[in-house]
Amino acid sequence: MLIIKTIIRLRSTLDKARAKGQTIGFVPTMGSFHEGHLSLMRQAKKDNDLCVVSIYVNPTQFGPKEDFKKYPRDLRRDSSMILKENIDILFVPSDNEIYSDRYLTYIDVEKISQPLCGHFRPGHFRGVATVVAKLLNIVQPHVMYLGQKDAQQVAVLRTMIQDLNFPVKVEVVATSREQDGLAMSSRNKYLSPKDRQESVVLYKALSSAKAMVESGTSSPAKVKATIKSLIKKESSGKIQYVECVNADTLETLKRFEGRVLIALAVFFGKTRLIDNIVIPQHDSRKIKS
Amino acid sequence: MLIIKTIIRLRSTLDKARAKGQTIGFVPTMGSFHEGHLSLMRQAKKDNDLCVVSIYVNPTQFGPKEDFKKYPRDLRRDSSMILKENIDILFVPSDNEIYSDRYLTYIDVEKISQPLCGHFRPGHFRGVATVVAKLLNIVQPHVMYLGQKDAQQVAVLRTMIQDLNFPVKVEVVATSREQDGLAMSSRNKYLSPKDRQESVVLYKALSSAKAMVESGTSSPAKVKATIKSLIKKESSGKIQYVECVNADTLETLKRFEGRVLIALAVFFGKTRLIDNIVIPQHDSRKIKS
Repeated sequence: MLIIKTIIRLRSTLDKARAKGQTIGFVPTMGSFHEGHLSLMRQAKKDNDLCVVSIYVNPTQFGPKEDFKKYPRDLRRDSSMILKENIDILFVPSDNEIYSDRYLTYIDVEKISQPLCGHFRPGHFRGVATVVAKLLNIVQPHVMYLGQKDAQQVAVLRTMIQDLNFPVKVEVVATSREQDGLAMSSRNKYLSPKDRQESVVLYKALSSAKAMVESGTSSPAKVKATIKSLIKKESSGKIQYVECVNADTLETLKRFEGRVLIALAVFFGKTRLIDNIVIPQHDSRKIKS
Repeated sequence: MLIIKTIIRLRSTLDKARAKGQTIGFVPTMGSFHEGHLSLMRQAKKDNDLCVVSIYVNPTQFGPKEDFKKYPRDLRRDSSMILKENIDILFVPSDNEIYSDRYLTYIDVEKISQPLCGHFRPGHFRGVATVVAKLLNIVQPHVMYLGQKDAQQVAVLRTMIQDLNFPVKVEVVATSREQDGLAMSSRNKYLSPKDRQESVVLYKALSSAKAMVESGTSSPAKVKATIKSLIKKESSGKIQYVECVNADTLETLKRFEGRVLIALAVFFGKTRLIDNIVIPQHDSRKIKS
């Protein structure tokens, strides 16, 4: 595995690969790897000649009161953790390499950046869209791999890529979960043992919600209420949001139809966890009739 | 010359060229060609294996009260005019091809989009940056050719390309002028004979300003006043702005230093003309001492 720190060296390495006709799979990350990241890398490796993984904790996607400074960074741990994955290139640029002193350009994906996490993290998806556009132009991959755990990020980036005609395919990989169902996250390590135990309620609640929708419940309000009451009953988590939206446009659903995304964010202590579940091509009218 | 209307066909044609190792020079235009466009195409043709020219009158860069609807469109004239230039591909996408019904993504280049034309055309450079990013992702050229006539456009796009790491080189071609000095523009044809005659004052004033700076005048205020009084004296043009700025950052100059851009916009009747002149690496202190 090559560890590359500069854009110029990465480009010259990848230009040679492209000239040989090799395909490039790309996994953008903020490091602090867990099994979820590895599943993205394995898929990228399986589908392409080369797998490029980036680690960059992007300052522009953190709000002023968020955990940018304390976000876990441990390149030694991360690089040893993926040694057996046969990653070809690990790209670990410095802040200076990504944002110059005179940096001025930002990408807004309107509407789809506003609800859910976007409502509570203003500017977050602007930062995400901007850094991913940069990484796409630097790596020029054939396929980019994203995790379904960050459902809004997937929707925002898919829209940006389609709107700006980036010549890249997006593959979304299912959320990796702990044995008890908790979605893997770099932030799970912050949970107290009690919060860790209680956090299983998130996936439990989402699974119940999915079952309700699939069995014909037509009211998103009812489903949201069920999720909220289960979380309140079985944990001390503070709910930030629970929403039922169209999985592609993120527009609020008045009734269940199309590809449904049920997404939530809940604080356990100071740790904010997000999770979601997708119900493909649903039509509540068909189930009822 | 191939005339291509769809992204999918353009991509498949250019993918084949790239696979053969051919280099691609790209000239983005809004059509209504004049000698200035041809000079860009000739440079692109000279420097590269293939020259791709796009014609797209981009709605997102026109303000609600601007001339989007009446902007001249004549593909027959344009395509016949460039037949002898040996252009390889003329890309003429429809509005639907560029902006879908669900289009949501925009690129802002902060600060540099705000002064000069940006002040009077809010949103203009957002539209320009967005459509050029799209065209760069569609064409994936090695070099893009821009005209110095649109000096702020050059500065905005250079910044966007550098900031977002687009893998393309930018070449700026000198402004083409009529024999009497008027900068060529698709909008010149709107001028009345009297306004056309008077409009020569713009280049005359810019040339005098350049001479003043080169001979040691240190005060931008004085140079601006000279330009304005000459325009008022020798024409009925209504001045929108005259500014002395740094040619790269477009920051207002308090004294002449670095690469100087003197730019102006003047209305003749309803027709808005812009022009500018660049003074490379100037330092008024050195001349004085």
